[in-house]
Amino acid sequence: MYDGIVQELIDEFGRLPGIGPKSAQRIAFHILQTPSFDVKRLSELLVEVRERVRFCEICGNVAEQERCAICRDPRRNPALICVVEDAKDVAAIERTREFRGLYHVLGGAISPIAGVGPDDLRITQLMTRLADGTVQEVILATNPNLEGEATASYLSRLLTSMEITVSRLASGLPVGGDLEYADEVTLSRAFEGRRVL
Amino acid sequence: MYDGIVQELIDEFGRLPGIGPKSAQRIAFHILQTPSFDVKRLSELLVEVRERVRFCEICGNVAEQERCAICRDPRRNPALICVVEDAKDVAAIERTREFRGLYHVLGGAISPIAGVGPDDLRITQLMTRLADGTVQEVILATNPNLEGEATASYLSRLLTSMEITVSRLASGLPVGGDLEYADEVTLSRAFEGRRVL
Repeated sequence: MYDGIVQELIDEFGRLPGIGPKSAQRIAFHILQTPSFDVKRLSELLVEVRERVRFCEICGNVAEQERCAICRDPRRNPALICVVEDAKDVAAIERTREFRGLYHVLGGAISPIAGVGPDDLRITQLMTRLADGTVQEVILATNPNLEGEATASYLSRLLTSMEITVSRLASGLPVGGDLEYADEVTLSRAFEGRRVL
Repeated sequence: MYDGIVQELIDEFGRLPGIGPKSAQRIAFHILQTPSFDVKRLSELLVEVRERVRFCEICGNVAEQERCAICRDPRRNPALICVVEDAKDVAAIERTREFRGLYHVLGGAISPIAGVGPDDLRITQLMTRLADGTVQEVILATNPNLEGEATASYLSRLLTSMEITVSRLASGLPVGGDLEYADEVTLSRAFEGRRVL
């Protein structure tokens, strides 16, 4: 549709997740027509980010050093480990400011359909971390979907032999949500997990 | 939330139109975690696109030469000019394969609120193009909203003195749409523009 390079830029943006052809076009034109948009900065960042970012050797979170900012922080409680699927989940939990322990990023969830088994996840690394007896509780914070639940139950079976408390994040109605619009599974979970007031 | 450069990349993507903080995060992680994504290519394209792309000296469409591919094409009918607000509109109309004339990109629409007056648009250039008498019809294809309508009526007043047919794209029900969900203005336009069968 467009002359060479404009179309190439649109196509390249279209390869990013969540960006369809229309959005890609809108972004490409924004870049073309907005002199204040710093193309050089974004261009440099793209290359730099790949060069500089690694994954924390302990927890697997994103880091610019060998260990991530959370694992380096002496104020975090090393007796508590929260297991998540992805580094993005670390950021989501950090935003709540509720959790002061450490993390362990699995790098995915068990999914026979996608061909992801326990060996493809950072489970051996988790077991190594738990070996020295410092950790008292492991919170399984994998996603509340099929793959996440499978991963959580796999891990909880693996951890029963150890003297560690294993917990799972509560499922239930989202705060601010409407009971009427909750799906049956969520609603029955909310019943199962009801608290006495 | 993230260590330095990852957050910088997220922020930079968040500056693009239609990309919120969550999408920006998702894109940044995709770039980090997908080795097959060619960061170097996107990085180079960003800088190159600004260097290489200019706007057609005749119609204002995007071009890599002095004239755009449409203005250079001898098969296009020079007696017909379709006036649009933006270069993206040229691509939208080209996709229909209905129009074989030339274009004129105004670079926006008259909007007193946004402080855009007729002098901020490529109207003088349009009048110059019309001066030699080649053009027989001008199709006003500005957007069917307040600004687009204002621009269309400004242009149609400007062109009344010339021996040129001035037309406007039809307003009405979108094809495949549902009458029930059409807004009143669109529905009354559909009545006004009804065709005898």
